[in-house]
Amino acid sequence: MGRIGAYRDGLMPPTPNALPSARPSRVIVEAVAPVVDGGAFPAKATLGELVTVLADVFADGHDRAAAALRVRQGATPWRELPMEPLGNDRFAATFVPDALGRWQYQVVGWLDHLGTWRHGMELKLEAEVDVTVDLQIGAALVAAAQAAASGADADALATLHDRLDAGDASALRRAPHHSIDDPDGRIPDHDDTAPEDHGPDELDALFWRAGIRERLAELPHPLEIEIDPVRARFSSWYEFFPRSAVAPDTAPATLADALDRLDYVAAMGFDVLYIPPVHPIGLTQRKGRNNTTTPTPDDVGSPWAIGAPEGGHTSVHPELGTADDVVTLADGCRQRGMELALDIAFQCTPDHPWVTEHPEWFAHRPDGSIQYAENPPKKYQDIYPLDFESSDWQGLWTALADVIRFWIEHGVTVFRVDNPHTKAFAFWQWCIAAIRGDHPEAIFLAEAFTRPRVMERLAKIGFNQSYTYFTWRQSSWEIRQYFDDLSQRTVDSFRPNVWPNTPDILTEQLQTGGPSMFAIRAILAATLSPAWGVYGPAFELQEHLPMRAGSEEYLDSEKYQLREWDLRRPDSLAPLLGRLNRIRREQPALQHLRTLHFHEASTPAVLCYSKTDPAGEAAPVLVVVNLDARQRQQVVVDVDLKQLGLPYDIAYDVHDHLTGATRRWHGSHNPVDLDPWAFPAHVFTVEAVR
Amino acid sequence: MGRIGAYRDGLMPPTPNALPSARPSRVIVEAVAPVVDGGAFPAKATLGELVTVLADVFADGHDRAAAALRVRQGATPWRELPMEPLGNDRFAATFVPDALGRWQYQVVGWLDHLGTWRHGMELKLEAEVDVTVDLQIGAALVAAAQAAASGADADALATLHDRLDAGDASALRRAPHHSIDDPDGRIPDHDDTAPEDHGPDELDALFWRAGIRERLAELPHPLEIEIDPVRARFSSWYEFFPRSAVAPDTAPATLADALDRLDYVAAMGFDVLYIPPVHPIGLTQRKGRNNTTTPTPDDVGSPWAIGAPEGGHTSVHPELGTADDVVTLADGCRQRGMELALDIAFQCTPDHPWVTEHPEWFAHRPDGSIQYAENPPKKYQDIYPLDFESSDWQGLWTALADVIRFWIEHGVTVFRVDNPHTKAFAFWQWCIAAIRGDHPEAIFLAEAFTRPRVMERLAKIGFNQSYTYFTWRQSSWEIRQYFDDLSQRTVDSFRPNVWPNTPDILTEQLQTGGPSMFAIRAILAATLSPAWGVYGPAFELQEHLPMRAGSEEYLDSEKYQLREWDLRRPDSLAPLLGRLNRIRREQPALQHLRTLHFHEASTPAVLCYSKTDPAGEAAPVLVVVNLDARQRQQVVVDVDLKQLGLPYDIAYDVHDHLTGATRRWHGSHNPVDLDPWAFPAHVFTVEAVR
Repeated sequence: MGRIGAYRDGLMPPTPNALPSARPSRVIVEAVAPVVDGGAFPAKATLGELVTVLADVFADGHDRAAAALRVRQGATPWRELPMEPLGNDRFAATFVPDALGRWQYQVVGWLDHLGTWRHGMELKLEAEVDVTVDLQIGAALVAAAQAAASGADADALATLHDRLDAGDASALRRAPHHSIDDPDGRIPDHDDTAPEDHGPDELDALFWRAGIRERLAELPHPLEIEIDPVRARFSSWYEFFPRSAVAPDTAPATLADALDRLDYVAAMGFDVLYIPPVHPIGLTQRKGRNNTTTPTPDDVGSPWAIGAPEGGHTSVHPELGTADDVVTLADGCRQRGMELALDIAFQCTPDHPWVTEHPEWFAHRPDGSIQYAENPPKKYQDIYPLDFESSDWQGLWTALADVIRFWIEHGVTVFRVDNPHTKAFAFWQWCIAAIRGDHPEAIFLAEAFTRPRVMERLAKIGFNQSYTYFTWRQSSWEIRQYFDDLSQRTVDSFRPNVWPNTPDILTEQLQTGGPSMFAIRAILAATLSPAWGVYGPAFELQEHLPMRAGSEEYLDSEKYQLREWDLRRPDSLAPLLGRLNRIRREQPALQHLRTLHFHEASTPAVLCYSKTDPAGEAAPVLVVVNLDARQRQQVVVDVDLKQLGLPYDIAYDVHDHLTGATRRWHGSHNPVDLDPWAFPAHVFTVEAVR
Repeated sequence: MGRIGAYRDGLMPPTPNALPSARPSRVIVEAVAPVVDGGAFPAKATLGELVTVLADVFADGHDRAAAALRVRQGATPWRELPMEPLGNDRFAATFVPDALGRWQYQVVGWLDHLGTWRHGMELKLEAEVDVTVDLQIGAALVAAAQAAASGADADALATLHDRLDAGDASALRRAPHHSIDDPDGRIPDHDDTAPEDHGPDELDALFWRAGIRERLAELPHPLEIEIDPVRARFSSWYEFFPRSAVAPDTAPATLADALDRLDYVAAMGFDVLYIPPVHPIGLTQRKGRNNTTTPTPDDVGSPWAIGAPEGGHTSVHPELGTADDVVTLADGCRQRGMELALDIAFQCTPDHPWVTEHPEWFAHRPDGSIQYAENPPKKYQDIYPLDFESSDWQGLWTALADVIRFWIEHGVTVFRVDNPHTKAFAFWQWCIAAIRGDHPEAIFLAEAFTRPRVMERLAKIGFNQSYTYFTWRQSSWEIRQYFDDLSQRTVDSFRPNVWPNTPDILTEQLQTGGPSMFAIRAILAATLSPAWGVYGPAFELQEHLPMRAGSEEYLDSEKYQLREWDLRRPDSLAPLLGRLNRIRREQPALQHLRTLHFHEASTPAVLCYSKTDPAGEAAPVLVVVNLDARQRQQVVVDVDLKQLGLPYDIAYDVHDHLTGATRRWHGSHNPVDLDPWAFPAHVFTVEAVR
């Protein structure tokens, strides 16, 4: 929490003995959520998502506080929603953002004199004490509200006033519970904090609307929330190298050829196609096959070695095609319900035009040479990092942002950013804000595998999605600990995009676990995280040989050479990927992270977790995964029924969307039998038997 | 966390596409602790306490960040301390405040170019790669630092430069670990986060001091911490009604008589003597014995019914004495190492002079009468609350603050504030800041038993100590949950003062639990919380009869009548209270809250917890309490050895300071036998057998 919730006079004033110049509000507004670093950074949500804003609102003494949420997009007028009490001084209201870009929200609180009075009246009437003077007090409060109201509210208050004035206490009789919420907003059903007493009725709503609001308390400044496209939260990514051939072809492929593979990708249900850099590749210090430093003339080099005499970051490798081919490919993706994602890798080979045009953008060594990339003692002489402390940092920053703008003009709105953590944070904060200011549909995925605070910072300063440690979280306790953190502590700013493999990461698990391990990791990724991806066809074809023992690099990696893939192989996992993506699309519960909850299983070899639909409409999903690719597990899972919205002692059906089978469970403890050689997991929807 | 850690340009600028006017620092400073609501309120510490400031400090890429803590009291010059890396980008430094009042601290970070270079050199030297150019790079960095340095540092840098320039890489050889910390500061030993690598040596310290600090990153504003007297954290309170007689006397007693009881209180080791209001008591609507509304002429009334023709909040009841007697009593306390605490109860009887002198300070009802206090349907016609929405709120606030200043002028610095939550928060924030600005030795204890957020708010806005829910937390899970919250979530602002009983609260546990339950509750209070208190002699004499079944009010409560106490009773618990206070004084571990840790026991009837000395010097204290006053418990406790700083598989002695007995324990699981009819608890110190 931030300076949020402080009195406006906050810290001790310079003349501490001086009285405030005006009488401060008696109401406190604090502990507002969502909030990122006290409001220093916007929170994140997506178009059409339910955004529930919470706040502590209270006053001294026995007086009741009322609260409203105000929201607006950009500079549009504020819209006001009632906040409902959840108990313990916590209030909530939910809004549904209907436009992309930066929204603001503010919580205001005031003394609810009418509500305080009514509550006291109810207690006195119940105790049958004399309320003659109290009715006069109420009549005066109602008269004041009526004088400030208009329309139907004024009429209702006038009627109420007359009844109170005539000593008619029955005017206060409480109607059955009726939400004062508006049709747009809704408190999630799964919140387990009970309201302090019976819910508000029509009279409360009238008092909320028409009560005199003196000395509003509010946050010192509105909070911000960035509304992203749905794909920033919920998306399935597929990566391939367009230059590799697909059997029966053997010749190097082009961007035009990649068009022919879109149906294959779309059929698996992916909605983002990500391709590595398409730019000219340097010759100087070019790496050979398997990352050797002795290339042969026919070695194609790494796509991340960007820059050659043919051009740099806004050029396309002549052997791949042209910038127009990128436009065509992006269009082809969109026709199939997908988006094309390009790779933004801000680094240069010694052959990049910028090296001669802008030598000041690179650091120089005492011997006059340009400083190459290194991670001591490793040296990457084929790569020059850009110097973010350059004397011409403004020129450099502008040029880099212009690269992204160039590709946006060529129909690309999704960018996978290579190693963003080796560039200045302030650059990204400026660059992403500037570009998304014009193009709020743009999505940036941070490919940073580094220390936690650095990865979290990149998310806070604007990246819409982030790569994670998922690949290295393999035991059940590692996965629980990591995803509890992702779904709770950092959920307002850091959106995980989890990958079982990448061209850089072939874990030992995949090297040795056989096809079942590929299935296990895909199921985990696709159901734990709303965003996931695979590097294919290496993934579905279970490419698993490392360059050498102990390495996570692929043998004969596509990063350094052309490959030829046979997509028709009968053992391909493409059908499983397709099924997983279909389940994800059908089940809203899987499209969110915040409701992830782990359940206990009788062995750590089995992981059990659920997700619920934040809107409370779709069925809960319960996933049970055997993490052991070698061993059948017959276990008991202990289902936290409350988390699934199930009463105790009820029967419920669990329907497995992987196999199509349904069975009936009772109570919390139920047996599960998972054979990795058959099917290593269940992805259940849960339905109570009424 | 607050706006703390944001770039200074923080939220999106008005013209988002504009570049920053100057190149921002590449270093981030964030997640600083201690911090209360992101810096909206000061944190709290006491004179001489170790204050450890933590921060995440990091840069992009592989560059290392260095950090310093700057502290100052009031407007004194900043003092700078090195911050040491704890790993995972976390840095820490510890300072010891040596003056009362408001301190500020700031964390600054910068790119540690020399450290980054040295670290790279070490890796390259280990890999035996050519470092010729690297030595030149280092020599240039050292030369730049030398040019800005002076004295011995400049000399050392000159020598280093010459060796590097001559190609002598051995100049970088790492000395054994040596702390760069200054003698004042210290990282607590118990922190279990390991540094990233071997600790800093002399050369690192030189680089820290003399490295060029360009573009310092820092928090947008310094954070504040309020340094209170030690008693604000660590104190033992004793409350008695001075007007009640002590056997063999039977006549009503006076403040002068109270002087005679100070030795009794001091002998029990208490260091704050708190007495209920000493002011004239109203006659109108005076309450009789046992809170009846039909008083007899000899009924003395409640001390909290303040105000009579003789005077109000700055007068002393003629039957108790004079304001000078308060001076004498306060002096008498101080002579015995105690402080006198007065009761501040801002409410008036209908007879209070303010009612006629300042009718505008009270709310009026439509029938012209003054609004009495009520908690519907209950009415307190003998009490008029003050109206904090008065048109003359400034006059009212000033008068109330002047009451406190009056008693400070009469030698009182400790105030127990009655029902502060029924007065405006803004009033207290102003009043306490104003008074402590002049009198930082003043201590305010909030007697608020209300909702959690309200109690926490009072602490944030300035109360130094707070009453708690301790009396109603009775089962082991309730106590664990509550004290985990107190020792972790709110520990930087909310200081609990826990009481087994008060004149208002005689729990059913004490009504029915017998003498053992009094002992159990005293042991819990005295060892769980650094501040505790009892209402005596009712406590040590185990007064336990309620006014009626189901009530927490005492029968024949001293609030409404005179009592006579026989302090010589052989079953008095005074010796136990004395022993507990002596243990608290001897064991620094018990004087702090932050290190509280619960250990497991084999039955919920037994509670086991430990505290360690934050300075790491004194012995850990391990407490085992049988919560069941009726039943002997023979159980096994599972001691978390790591928490006590004990290695596994070692023998250690546990010495019980209640009984004086010592026994030898081994490993984590050890048997305990607690008979409430003998002794219901152990208060051990723990010492490893070397």
